[in-house]
Amino acid sequence: MSELRCGPFADQWVISAPERGRRPSDYRREEEERSKEEDCPFCPGNEQMTPPEIYRVTGEDRRWRVRVVPNKFPALQDQPRLDREAVADVFVRVNGVGSHEVVIDSPEHRKEIPDLPLEQIELIIDTYVLRLRALMEKSAHRYVLLFKNHGKEAGASLAHPHSQIIAAPIVPPAVEARLQAAKAYYKKKRRCPFCDILVEEIRCGERIIEEADGYVLLAPYDSRFPFEMAIYPRDHAHDFTAITAEQRRGLARVLKRTLSRLKCLLEDPPYNLILQTALNSREETTAGQKVLSSSSHWRIEIIPRLTRMAGFEWGSGLHINPTPPEEAARYLREVAITG
Amino acid sequence: MSELRCGPFADQWVISAPERGRRPSDYRREEEERSKEEDCPFCPGNEQMTPPEIYRVTGEDRRWRVRVVPNKFPALQDQPRLDREAVADVFVRVNGVGSHEVVIDSPEHRKEIPDLPLEQIELIIDTYVLRLRALMEKSAHRYVLLFKNHGKEAGASLAHPHSQIIAAPIVPPAVEARLQAAKAYYKKKRRCPFCDILVEEIRCGERIIEEADGYVLLAPYDSRFPFEMAIYPRDHAHDFTAITAEQRRGLARVLKRTLSRLKCLLEDPPYNLILQTALNSREETTAGQKVLSSSSHWRIEIIPRLTRMAGFEWGSGLHINPTPPEEAARYLREVAITG
Repeated sequence: MSELRCGPFADQWVISAPERGRRPSDYRREEEERSKEEDCPFCPGNEQMTPPEIYRVTGEDRRWRVRVVPNKFPALQDQPRLDREAVADVFVRVNGVGSHEVVIDSPEHRKEIPDLPLEQIELIIDTYVLRLRALMEKSAHRYVLLFKNHGKEAGASLAHPHSQIIAAPIVPPAVEARLQAAKAYYKKKRRCPFCDILVEEIRCGERIIEEADGYVLLAPYDSRFPFEMAIYPRDHAHDFTAITAEQRRGLARVLKRTLSRLKCLLEDPPYNLILQTALNSREETTAGQKVLSSSSHWRIEIIPRLTRMAGFEWGSGLHINPTPPEEAARYLREVAITG
Repeated sequence: MSELRCGPFADQWVISAPERGRRPSDYRREEEERSKEEDCPFCPGNEQMTPPEIYRVTGEDRRWRVRVVPNKFPALQDQPRLDREAVADVFVRVNGVGSHEVVIDSPEHRKEIPDLPLEQIELIIDTYVLRLRALMEKSAHRYVLLFKNHGKEAGASLAHPHSQIIAAPIVPPAVEARLQAAKAYYKKKRRCPFCDILVEEIRCGERIIEEADGYVLLAPYDSRFPFEMAIYPRDHAHDFTAITAEQRRGLARVLKRTLSRLKCLLEDPPYNLILQTALNSREETTAGQKVLSSSSHWRIEIIPRLTRMAGFEWGSGLHINPTPPEEAARYLREVAITG
């Protein structure tokens, strides 16, 4: 069973997941991506290769369009209760309560978001909303993170396009740090810091890639990575799962164009996509919930994996970005999107 | 010129370094490591290929043993003054004041720390101490980070063994977070948190790899990466540059054994090595300096690069480690060190 561990500093948690189990010899040869359709557990006809299905969207032809299944090697999983234990007064351990699901984007082994019709992307987004809502029902799930790894260098071990959703029993350190800073900003200025960023970005314009369908796509001022992008709803909204049908259709269009820009400009680079949304605030006071909902703003972050982390980045938390976001935005704005 | 940037959240700074300059097409083909001796700017005979030398250690035969040169593509560099500027009340920009040096470990193109004689490793450590002291003289240098990237996957662009030292005009976010947490721990318990960790680790023993020569080598309880290691001085010491000649000799022996363990166990894996030491506290009050020196403990962190960061890790700051540190320590303790 996996567990969460923390030293005397509450700022660093890790998930120790031994069933994903690796001895020294396991690291010597890199796993190959399974890329042939006949071996692919996410292709139609191979449904029995995944753990029992959690959810599916079925088409008029009775075939599935999107499937959700448990991750075969879950980082966290459902357990009877949350056990928190101090170890010798310096360490803390929490059992690995949570959930780890896989959303199979479509039956097509070789079609990424840029290649899929808008209707299919809308089905994927609908599925995201439904699964996030379901996972947020459990009070043990403090935060639910949705992400997509594209390409081996971005951590994808299966080629068939898919996303993952992990529900964790703690607010993860990076999320917590951002929430606290956003709350402090809000308490001082009574404004959402992300809304303030959007106002300034739109006024300045240099880092805007597009503004359409109710969303703003930009290269963040403090981009850590070359060609990093973020999609924000134009108007304040803290909870992704509250989006309307019209907003979903808009998001499908923006997402398709965004990932097409990336694919065309950088020849289908590896990337990570991350949805940052509201945490599970049901145990907060009404006033606490008000501050949280006023100071956070859901967004999708897209990180192309073009550079490598080295000792400086690990030791300092400071990233060195060789491509200024103003230049990245210009390239991404001007690239011709092709089929 | 490079600059440091920060959004409305003081927790994330980045270095925007456009002279390392990258257009989209530059990312398409991975740079090759320059590995042939004749092309290597760090090999004897090619000294004119580096920027003008900062420091060298010369042997009795008048040849150099260790050289220090400026990084040809510095992330930060010396500038007349520090300019801090607010951008539209939401962003902050600081000009890229600092320094970026390279320490060439030895004249030997193919000899890593495990292959070098102890005397050479002592010269490298002496050089580290001297350069760190010199860089800490400048009040604009708030933190000086020493690191080593080994192998292309760990970010090394030149194969000839070397280390790097970057002096930054801010305390980097990861260092600041750790310092604040350590100070809070100290204020509550009046003890150094790292000393408390060492007491518990030695009592428990499971994660200790060796304890010798005044140092403790262990696999941290909250290891983020498989086979992660840390070297701590056994007795409290916050400032690496204050080590005695005897402690340097001890460190040379521990460092050689540590990296030999890694090399033998995992077949010379890529890794990052990071020295965390005292920040520049000359602008602190005497009381502030006392708290800092009592609550921090210098250490060397070694991160083998065997797994990939994926969307979950970027989005959450939570690492999933498939090899528990107890197992890692057992393997690293028991491995036969050869050659």
